[in-house]
Amino acid sequence: MNKITLLIHCKDRPNIIASVTNFIAKEGGNIVYIDQHVDREQDIFFMRLESEFTAQSFSTDAFKESFKNNLVNGFDMKWRIYSSEVKPKMALFISKYDHCLYDLLGRYNSGELNLEIPFIVSNHLDLKPIADNFKIPFHHIPVTKDTKAEAEDKQLKLLEEHHIDFIVLARYMQIVSEKLITKYPNKIINIHHSFLPAFVGAKPYHSAYKRGVKIIGATSHYVTEELDAGPIIEQDVAHVSHTHSIKDLIAKGRDLEKIVLANAVKLHADRKVMVYNNKTVIFS
Amino acid sequence: MNKITLLIHCKDRPNIIASVTNFIAKEGGNIVYIDQHVDREQDIFFMRLESEFTAQSFSTDAFKESFKNNLVNGFDMKWRIYSSEVKPKMALFISKYDHCLYDLLGRYNSGELNLEIPFIVSNHLDLKPIADNFKIPFHHIPVTKDTKAEAEDKQLKLLEEHHIDFIVLARYMQIVSEKLITKYPNKIINIHHSFLPAFVGAKPYHSAYKRGVKIIGATSHYVTEELDAGPIIEQDVAHVSHTHSIKDLIAKGRDLEKIVLANAVKLHADRKVMVYNNKTVIFS
Amino acid sequence: MNKITLLIHCKDRPNIIASVTNFIAKEGGNIVYIDQHVDREQDIFFMRLESEFTAQSFSTDAFKESFKNNLVNGFDMKWRIYSSEVKPKMALFISKYDHCLYDLLGRYNSGELNLEIPFIVSNHLDLKPIADNFKIPFHHIPVTKDTKAEAEDKQLKLLEEHHIDFIVLARYMQIVSEKLITKYPNKIINIHHSFLPAFVGAKPYHSAYKRGVKIIGATSHYVTEELDAGPIIEQDVAHVSHTHSIKDLIAKGRDLEKIVLANAVKLHADRKVMVYNNKTVIFS
Amino acid sequence: MNKITLLIHCKDRPNIIASVTNFIAKEGGNIVYIDQHVDREQDIFFMRLESEFTAQSFSTDAFKESFKNNLVNGFDMKWRIYSSEVKPKMALFISKYDHCLYDLLGRYNSGELNLEIPFIVSNHLDLKPIADNFKIPFHHIPVTKDTKAEAEDKQLKLLEEHHIDFIVLARYMQIVSEKLITKYPNKIINIHHSFLPAFVGAKPYHSAYKRGVKIIGATSHYVTEELDAGPIIEQDVAHVSHTHSIKDLIAKGRDLEKIVLANAVKLHADRKVMVYNNKTVIFS
Repeated sequence: MNKITLLIHCKDRPNIIASVTNFIAKEGGNIVYIDQHVDREQDIFFMRLESEFTAQSFSTDAFKESFKNNLVNGFDMKWRIYSSEVKPKMALFISKYDHCLYDLLGRYNSGELNLEIPFIVSNHLDLKPIADNFKIPFHHIPVTKDTKAEAEDKQLKLLEEHHIDFIVLARYMQIVSEKLITKYPNKIINIHHSFLPAFVGAKPYHSAYKRGVKIIGATSHYVTEELDAGPIIEQDVAHVSHTHSIKDLIAKGRDLEKIVLANAVKLHADRKVMVYNNKTVIFS
Repeated sequence: MNKITLLIHCKDRPNIIASVTNFIAKEGGNIVYIDQHVDREQDIFFMRLESEFTAQSFSTDAFKESFKNNLVNGFDMKWRIYSSEVKPKMALFISKYDHCLYDLLGRYNSGELNLEIPFIVSNHLDLKPIADNFKIPFHHIPVTKDTKAEAEDKQLKLLEEHHIDFIVLARYMQIVSEKLITKYPNKIINIHHSFLPAFVGAKPYHSAYKRGVKIIGATSHYVTEELDAGPIIEQDVAHVSHTHSIKDLIAKGRDLEKIVLANAVKLHADRKVMVYNNKTVIFS
Repeated sequence: MNKITLLIHCKDRPNIIASVTNFIAKEGGNIVYIDQHVDREQDIFFMRLESEFTAQSFSTDAFKESFKNNLVNGFDMKWRIYSSEVKPKMALFISKYDHCLYDLLGRYNSGELNLEIPFIVSNHLDLKPIADNFKIPFHHIPVTKDTKAEAEDKQLKLLEEHHIDFIVLARYMQIVSEKLITKYPNKIINIHHSFLPAFVGAKPYHSAYKRGVKIIGATSHYVTEELDAGPIIEQDVAHVSHTHSIKDLIAKGRDLEKIVLANAVKLHADRKVMVYNNKTVIFS
Repeated sequence: MNKITLLIHCKDRPNIIASVTNFIAKEGGNIVYIDQHVDREQDIFFMRLESEFTAQSFSTDAFKESFKNNLVNGFDMKWRIYSSEVKPKMALFISKYDHCLYDLLGRYNSGELNLEIPFIVSNHLDLKPIADNFKIPFHHIPVTKDTKAEAEDKQLKLLEEHHIDFIVLARYMQIVSEKLITKYPNKIINIHHSFLPAFVGAKPYHSAYKRGVKIIGATSHYVTEELDAGPIIEQDVAHVSHTHSIKDLIAKGRDLEKIVLANAVKLHADRKVMVYNNKTVIFS
């Protein structure tokens, strides 16, 4: 049995749902999941659909071709079709903090994540032992002001060689360049340690402490050229009080960062996220 | 323009979505919302769909008839179709606690609730002034052991006269009888002041205090014959500590009760709740 | 029996707790509550203490005098002493939104708030009926650009005549002037409809919608001259998704605003809040 | 500099706080933390206090002796005094689930936990590699019906040899016997995967699924002879919906279990928990 996931968005107009579901029935598919959303401000229609095909002769490529010919033009759709059996490939970029790394690899090991991790990249060697324990290839690519462009070329080469689908910055402490962002649009997931848009940039826990907030947060978002301003995938917060020092906020925040990033990774890997107007539609 | 809401459930099998969406397209409808769920354990398919019809000649009754003839039998569907313009009629049963009453009437007044409140029933006179302030007819039907059956007949008469669609027990301190439950199956919403199934029955805050729990909760559910055991619509909790007395738990709990009940009422009034196997599917 | 609440803060140094508890024992008091905090960054000591005095001859004024003479100078303390029987007087400033007003008056009525509300002020007449229902004097003081100074003088006169202890801006849509703020430092409580410091200023729900955040929040803080930048008393958030329109965010936000403001009012009225460095210490 | 932590509870009566703080001042101590609680239902007084002593000659043992002679009898106190430098020793009991183990060891490694882990015990060999990676001695003590008593003797021997202060059952799937419980009263911490008192016993996620709850939870408690009925230290919940399968509940629950257990361990290790009447007072 074959199973595909279809994501579309286009200007809203009558009969999109009926046309798509009808097309799938004609192709011999049985829809097992359908969800849709209309942005009434912008008049944009979004849909996510999963369909099973029992015919031996089914081919995802042929289906894509047919979908393109029969539906895409009429509705001027943006669309993506995935074969549900093919797991996306995720590259992990890390630096010196280990909590998100442990968390993601623990989930990966337990089968919680529908993805593959061909390799881990770090600008430091500190966390190599963890990668080794989990038996994931580790590439040490140091980054200095002078070698930044060169380092990025090495990263890009690795990404291409391994046919990476998306990148996760698990507290990778470097700002990634326009070149990488352009190459992987809405495919680089970052975890920022504040409830954005508050406390953009460096040292958000210090800023939170100084402002005397009663909640701290974490935000996972796609990386865009503007710092910490990309489409938000997931956010969560925890309550704090005057008794918490900056060190306490950092410790409490680690728990938020782990869960928020893990949830964002799962949503992306399961192809449940659509991006438009610097916002996300999440079909969860 | 006419708009209908359709809710169906039936044994899962191929092509239900395509058949229904196809049928609606043929009837001239444009689907503006669709959501579905499959219970894989029980193999049951659920769907909620909203469709607009622009034809002058459209009639909800004719559509129902056509739906029944063309689709229901083939799939052995359980189904409900509502005209979206017709607001459901809700009867409020109260006793002496005013917090849920104030909360619901405040929301009603501000236009937050898609429903009508033809009347309020209480076994006490204490809260009549609030009903008067909000200009909602108030019926005082005292209940004693001896007059319980008689009181219920009066309630039933009122409910029928006003074509009531569903009943909300807003901290109504009486146990409603089998007769009423049978007449309004999955149409009587209660708010219980604990996170069910913990602390069933009377005085849950006292039990919570005694057990030393670190969270308290509230649960809104449909009333069935077994006490506090009906299908759960909504639940929420709040953190508490050893510093909270029973009185504190009750005060903190009031805030939970208000919001949990209000959310359940909204979900029901918007026809977003389906019930099966003593559980709910919530299309929110 | 007399009961007093004592709040102090001063530079941290040894033996503050022992000196104060010793002093109270000598004055014949029995300490029934004590809590303390040290800000290690700033080296400031904070304490809140409640003590009962059974002697017929006890006088709060005499106790204050003795406290001042025996302790304050030695430690260079900032201090406040309240007689626990005397409820603080709160003035409510409102405009056209009724949800926080209903919520606070409902709690006031049920005995949940340890305070008195001598009057309500509004720049509009819309909510007068609610004040009337709850039998609280309502003063209509319109505010226009030209009459702003004059209106404020009227407000100040009322505040003084009624010996008001603190002011609550329950979605009062006007910016209060420096004059009022200076007169009531850390005694004007505002509710802002975002998780500050995000979305300062007007229309935060619109900004939240535009940014595509996955949580919305509310913040209660003391009013200072810089807009929405005063010491934060309480914050809370709710999860939202792409399915929520701006109208939905506003409705969901109302529930946050009510609870966050009510909690801040309770904390302040119970003398549990201390302010320093534009932050709060909350002894809850 | 020496620092001690003092925990006391006794029948409530006047002047306890003044007497204790006075005593500590006389002994040359500077109180750096004080918190207290009175259970008004039971009339019991609780206090937690931290004090620093700068004198070279200070000895914790001598202080204990003096405390006992000067204060304990007069107030009939239950008391514990800890030298803050001495970290408690924790034994980890595990079985086949690795998520709580990874989580606790990750925190231990990062310096987040004020404790030592002399060894890990398991009835299975599966998780030995994780213990090895973190370089913590691992003891495999299989448990069968026939060898249960013998296995427990081995466990007890290990616990005694290593002067273990408390035991953490990190999803250890065995019921510990009366003998162990009696030996370590309120010193065995369990994590139960439901919001107790709901869903006591085996397979709580299955029961939660069947009941159709909208929240799931986790509870960390001290082990007593009655199953899942011991004093609750920490609880938390997560929202779920009809879309979650049992497998989803289990995965979501893992995140709760990790954090709830870690928080309980931290509170216990920091001597912030007091137990009475099968409930806890948490000075956090």
